[in-house]
Amino acid sequence: MMGVLQKEFRVSTRGRTEMIDITGQVQSIVRESGIANGSVTVFCPHTTAAIMINENADPSVVHDVLLALDEIVPRSNPGFRHDEGNSDAHCKSSLVGCSEQVLVKDGGLVLGTWQAIYFCEFDGPRSRRVIVQVQGE
Amino acid sequence: MMGVLQKEFRVSTRGRTEMIDITGQVQSIVRESGIANGSVTVFCPHTTAAIMINENADPSVVHDVLLALDEIVPRSNPGFRHDEGNSDAHCKSSLVGCSEQVLVKDGGLVLGTWQAIYFCEFDGPRSRRVIVQVQGE
Amino acid sequence: MMGVLQKEFRVSTRGRTEMIDITGQVQSIVRESGIANGSVTVFCPHTTAAIMINENADPSVVHDVLLALDEIVPRSNPGFRHDEGNSDAHCKSSLVGCSEQVLVKDGGLVLGTWQAIYFCEFDGPRSRRVIVQVQGE
Repeated sequence: MMGVLQKEFRVSTRGRTEMIDITGQVQSIVRESGIANGSVTVFCPHTTAAIMINENADPSVVHDVLLALDEIVPRSNPGFRHDEGNSDAHCKSSLVGCSEQVLVKDGGLVLGTWQAIYFCEFDGPRSRRVIVQVQGE
Repeated sequence: MMGVLQKEFRVSTRGRTEMIDITGQVQSIVRESGIANGSVTVFCPHTTAAIMINENADPSVVHDVLLALDEIVPRSNPGFRHDEGNSDAHCKSSLVGCSEQVLVKDGGLVLGTWQAIYFCEFDGPRSRRVIVQVQGE
Repeated sequence: MMGVLQKEFRVSTRGRTEMIDITGQVQSIVRESGIANGSVTVFCPHTTAAIMINENADPSVVHDVLLALDEIVPRSNPGFRHDEGNSDAHCKSSLVGCSEQVLVKDGGLVLGTWQAIYFCEFDGPRSRRVIVQVQGE
């Protein structure tokens, strides 16, 4: 029988830009759902943050990804009009995307050996929400 | 009981690059589906356009995101080979992505306070299609 | 009756960066599933590769997209710390994204006339996995 479970949790970020591994929280919600086969959607309801899947092993990868994003979308741009001064964060959010879908098999997340699910803060520090929905059978 | 409803609508774009808020049309299709809990996929069947979730309040954010994309992928590049002259639009489409998945709860879209769903035109003006599928129970 | 089928296949890449059209393999798995209406998720379990939907007709588009990505994230960056020398590939994977969701109607993929599903290699050549899950009724 197919079912749907939606839950949310909070993340507190400490820097202006930061990536926080939330794989454990997502796996816990999958376990709690009792759903064995299906998928889980991880959704960020903020427009200056994002959800990304990337390497979980060497923290240098997180450093390098954040650095590359800073260079792709410089914080200061004489053409920017939004007066909150965080247009770069909106752009990064658009490029990375506000959700990821991960498959679920036998109650576990189907991720590669080196993959983790990250909450990406681009305009912190802030208290943020993450919405997780498991669907399947 | 789980169900699936697929519908589509058209968007007419007026500029070469433009972002059009389609949240209302997506919400209408969710309501019409009668599905209370599940998700909705918004899919763009074009390779020079995209679907993005971003801020709905200050139109300056849309301006700044389009500006940043123009700078990330300049229209003219001596290395480009595609002879239609719109390779920049294909690249932007790839970076932003051609679909978004939004969760549905109690018949409503689960979006943050400041989030809207946008159709992104990168090679207009054109008449475009948006495909929407609601799945759930 | 709703159902879920998960399968995987391998892709052998030959260059450091390369895009391989996998639409046929995905369509075959949808056909095999017997699912007529729903969706299919195409997931890449690697952190230096990605899944992208883009033009299937003129191979120049693939060339131009790979070129633009090389310019957006140069391979060499004095600020990169990850000592495997492939941080650019991790960044490209994050920007493009490791999955795509495609709708299924009457047993067929709902894609635009010019759309194909690509496996994107950013740190090859390697033997890679692609995980495909069909869900629906």
